[in-house]
Amino acid sequence: MPIFETQEETPRIMEPLRRVGITNLRSVARINWKGKVYTFLPLFEITIDLPAEKKGIHMSRLIESVTDAMSEAVEEEVMKAHSSLEELGKCVIKRLEGKHPHRRAEVWVKTHLIIPRETPASGKTSYEPYDVEVGVIKNEDGSFEKVLRVRVVGNTVCPHAMANNDGKTHIQRAVGELEVRAPFEEEIPLEEMIDVVESSFSSPTYTLLKTPDENAVVQRMFSNPKFVEDVAREIFAKAKERFGGRIHVKVVSNESIHKHDVIAETWS
Amino acid sequence: MPIFETQEETPRIMEPLRRVGITNLRSVARINWKGKVYTFLPLFEITIDLPAEKKGIHMSRLIESVTDAMSEAVEEEVMKAHSSLEELGKCVIKRLEGKHPHRRAEVWVKTHLIIPRETPASGKTSYEPYDVEVGVIKNEDGSFEKVLRVRVVGNTVCPHAMANNDGKTHIQRAVGELEVRAPFEEEIPLEEMIDVVESSFSSPTYTLLKTPDENAVVQRMFSNPKFVEDVAREIFAKAKERFGGRIHVKVVSNESIHKHDVIAETWS
Amino acid sequence: MPIFETQEETPRIMEPLRRVGITNLRSVARINWKGKVYTFLPLFEITIDLPAEKKGIHMSRLIESVTDAMSEAVEEEVMKAHSSLEELGKCVIKRLEGKHPHRRAEVWVKTHLIIPRETPASGKTSYEPYDVEVGVIKNEDGSFEKVLRVRVVGNTVCPHAMANNDGKTHIQRAVGELEVRAPFEEEIPLEEMIDVVESSFSSPTYTLLKTPDENAVVQRMFSNPKFVEDVAREIFAKAKERFGGRIHVKVVSNESIHKHDVIAETWS
Amino acid sequence: MPIFETQEETPRIMEPLRRVGITNLRSVARINWKGKVYTFLPLFEITIDLPAEKKGIHMSRLIESVTDAMSEAVEEEVMKAHSSLEELGKCVIKRLEGKHPHRRAEVWVKTHLIIPRETPASGKTSYEPYDVEVGVIKNEDGSFEKVLRVRVVGNTVCPHAMANNDGKTHIQRAVGELEVRAPFEEEIPLEEMIDVVESSFSSPTYTLLKTPDENAVVQRMFSNPKFVEDVAREIFAKAKERFGGRIHVKVVSNESIHKHDVIAETWS
Repeated sequence: MPIFETQEETPRIMEPLRRVGITNLRSVARINWKGKVYTFLPLFEITIDLPAEKKGIHMSRLIESVTDAMSEAVEEEVMKAHSSLEELGKCVIKRLEGKHPHRRAEVWVKTHLIIPRETPASGKTSYEPYDVEVGVIKNEDGSFEKVLRVRVVGNTVCPHAMANNDGKTHIQRAVGELEVRAPFEEEIPLEEMIDVVESSFSSPTYTLLKTPDENAVVQRMFSNPKFVEDVAREIFAKAKERFGGRIHVKVVSNESIHKHDVIAETWS
Repeated sequence: MPIFETQEETPRIMEPLRRVGITNLRSVARINWKGKVYTFLPLFEITIDLPAEKKGIHMSRLIESVTDAMSEAVEEEVMKAHSSLEELGKCVIKRLEGKHPHRRAEVWVKTHLIIPRETPASGKTSYEPYDVEVGVIKNEDGSFEKVLRVRVVGNTVCPHAMANNDGKTHIQRAVGELEVRAPFEEEIPLEEMIDVVESSFSSPTYTLLKTPDENAVVQRMFSNPKFVEDVAREIFAKAKERFGGRIHVKVVSNESIHKHDVIAETWS
Repeated sequence: MPIFETQEETPRIMEPLRRVGITNLRSVARINWKGKVYTFLPLFEITIDLPAEKKGIHMSRLIESVTDAMSEAVEEEVMKAHSSLEELGKCVIKRLEGKHPHRRAEVWVKTHLIIPRETPASGKTSYEPYDVEVGVIKNEDGSFEKVLRVRVVGNTVCPHAMANNDGKTHIQRAVGELEVRAPFEEEIPLEEMIDVVESSFSSPTYTLLKTPDENAVVQRMFSNPKFVEDVAREIFAKAKERFGGRIHVKVVSNESIHKHDVIAETWS
Repeated sequence: MPIFETQEETPRIMEPLRRVGITNLRSVARINWKGKVYTFLPLFEITIDLPAEKKGIHMSRLIESVTDAMSEAVEEEVMKAHSSLEELGKCVIKRLEGKHPHRRAEVWVKTHLIIPRETPASGKTSYEPYDVEVGVIKNEDGSFEKVLRVRVVGNTVCPHAMANNDGKTHIQRAVGELEVRAPFEEEIPLEEMIDVVESSFSSPTYTLLKTPDENAVVQRMFSNPKFVEDVAREIFAKAKERFGGRIHVKVVSNESIHKHDVIAETWS
């Protein structure tokens, strides 16, 4: 039985589309990071452009590109192939090149990283979770770009209330987001981006805190009061100094005295 | 052309179902509260039971019950008919009784309330938002029950850190939820449930705070340190005293020193 | 007691910030649309820029601008002042001009619209919900721009499966989003944007459908199969024809044969 | 410096609490499933009860119980210790017994499973994602219970529209949830619960579908029309037959002809 390839027909409305593909795909990713293999279950989005004269893309070929890159990853090759989430993304695009014509392609991978930290007083190990997202973009000229995003939970300690209340103040959880968009070759470790954000709050936060650690965090918070604006400025200044590329910073503080949040955002 | 009523057929698997209906329906609700008409755009869920010998329910009749109750609401009748969200829910079930046989029915309405408050120092008016949900349940014996839920944003101030750091401590936003399940006739104003929760935090929160108000909130927080456990116990004790019915309390504190939350929950 | 205005101090890191303010603020909005007053409980975000030499903004003045615009709205003035969500946004910025120095300001309002429609066969009235978001931006030169967004639930009917299965195919819910960014004066009714999206699916969807209406929708779906790409192209073509300004279209189809979604996106 | 143990003080309001602990904790879990070690990054919730005469629990000891169980997991012991998510949960509670007095404890673990499936026509391997949640509860008498939840994406094909439109109908994505609550010893594989749900839709869904596979799914859907009620009944009947314990079923269908969802729910 012949198969109709409806996707290859000419559409009634001839408009090129920039991003066509699959999104909210949960799958496996294995990354060989400094000699050790880590497993993730990220959300993937994979898109290509579609020229004006084609009705649709062949969606299953995008899935196969992920699946192929994954099964490759399961084998020995992962030891050299996928040394980072962005290498994995590029590998998916490379697979796609042999399967589906396109001029532009994007792969996005969203997952969590768990990083061990030392607690500030007792020196215990605390495992800290961070949200990360990596986009790999193949431009029409064949060049590759990447977009790296980290999301870190910290805190703000209000300097205005502290000045007006003899050292008492309000404190709250804040969430800092840093995005760097750069040429693919640029070396920008996600861990370093996380450090930039985490070190810019009034204090870093920890999953495990024994009483002496909790005291150390409280002391640090009171000696380092910061507006949400201060946190955003510090992340932005550090990121510009350390990373090449375009930088976007957004900090949202879940105010303990209000029902709404406050926000500070800037970009280069 | 005759219409096949597939819903009336006997299903292959003869199992009664307890809750069949529509959910995530966004619609309009108009409530006449103490002589003034308020408009909401709530999310609705409406379900009935389905006996073993019927394949399906007639979903459109549930929608019509909402629509009819609403169009009634648009008219003069709203002035006497819908004096609360639970009266509206009961009115939808009453409409449904004429349209679709059932033994048990539920209507759930989820919306926001905005209540004006006076700020603690400057005496300005601040408009405070609260999430509320109301369920009306008609039991098999024809009796009506209601479930009322409120969700209030407040804060916790750690007494443990305060004792160990000469008055310094960590503070954070916390969210308190109170549910009361009672006979329909029981008088339980949502506003009073909100007060019970809001007054149990280290301090209430306000949308508008000028500097003297902010100072008053900070002073109150430091003079009233509370664990998430303390907040839950206080809500529970007050609710048991004021409201008839079964009570469920849950408080989640978005810790400023951790990336995770802490939780305290109890019920009668 | 003197109040310390910490916000006016010079920050340690002198970086200007582009967007500083409040977000996730739930409040009331009243709009006089064609002579009738509608009430909404939207989410607001209000930001201004912050120069390098100021440590922070005065957050409470942003709240007051909303509150003032609202209390004005409660009075007679709403009859002429707030004829649309974007007029309300502009009104908040105008209030802000007298309260807090800034060069750039943004107000964002996110809410739902309920629009009555006629069902396709029985001619009954069905109340359809849509998500809308309106941004008003005052640029540094004093000019005003607006960003209008609508989100509409529809469906896609796969033409590829239909061609390969003698008219049988897979069908699913799809969500179309249209954004138009234009000078403030440009007349772009949200209702017309909604129509553009809703008319571009295989069929519009309805809250209330009696059996003859359901049949009409099914017949329309099968006579109008569309890829997610087709829906995106049609929205884009219609929007370019009808509205001035920059246009962004995104359609996500919640595939009934996959666990992931498919996406088509383009912009001018 | 002595540490004040504020948690051990008598609270002002003497009410016992049922569930106190930590929630929304993202961490690592390693499971040895049939001889192969799998890594997950689940969300954890861990709670214990709190007697009336104690002000608070020692939150850090709950974290340590997770951390200890994890570091044990990293070592050889994982090969025998954590053969399932529920064994991991029990292991955390066992660790907790040595650290913090309590009468009742709960551990909840929420993650994704990826299971390889064979596509229906081309016989290719497709990796299918499922949401799972496992709760382990130690009761006051020392007995252990477990709660297992799976969430599976499938579809419904309307038999009513099919009967009234000569075989044409509307089709949509549906989501089925199955919960089983049973004594800890009861053998209830999550994979089998997933099978029960997935086989009860009009058709299973697949991540990868080449055209012949897509055709097979479409043919199956049209030969197997089902209301959301039919799906719920079939899951319920199969689950009662296969699994000991209390069963709860909920199916939500994301209608392609409506903007709202329909729901069918029942429990034993």
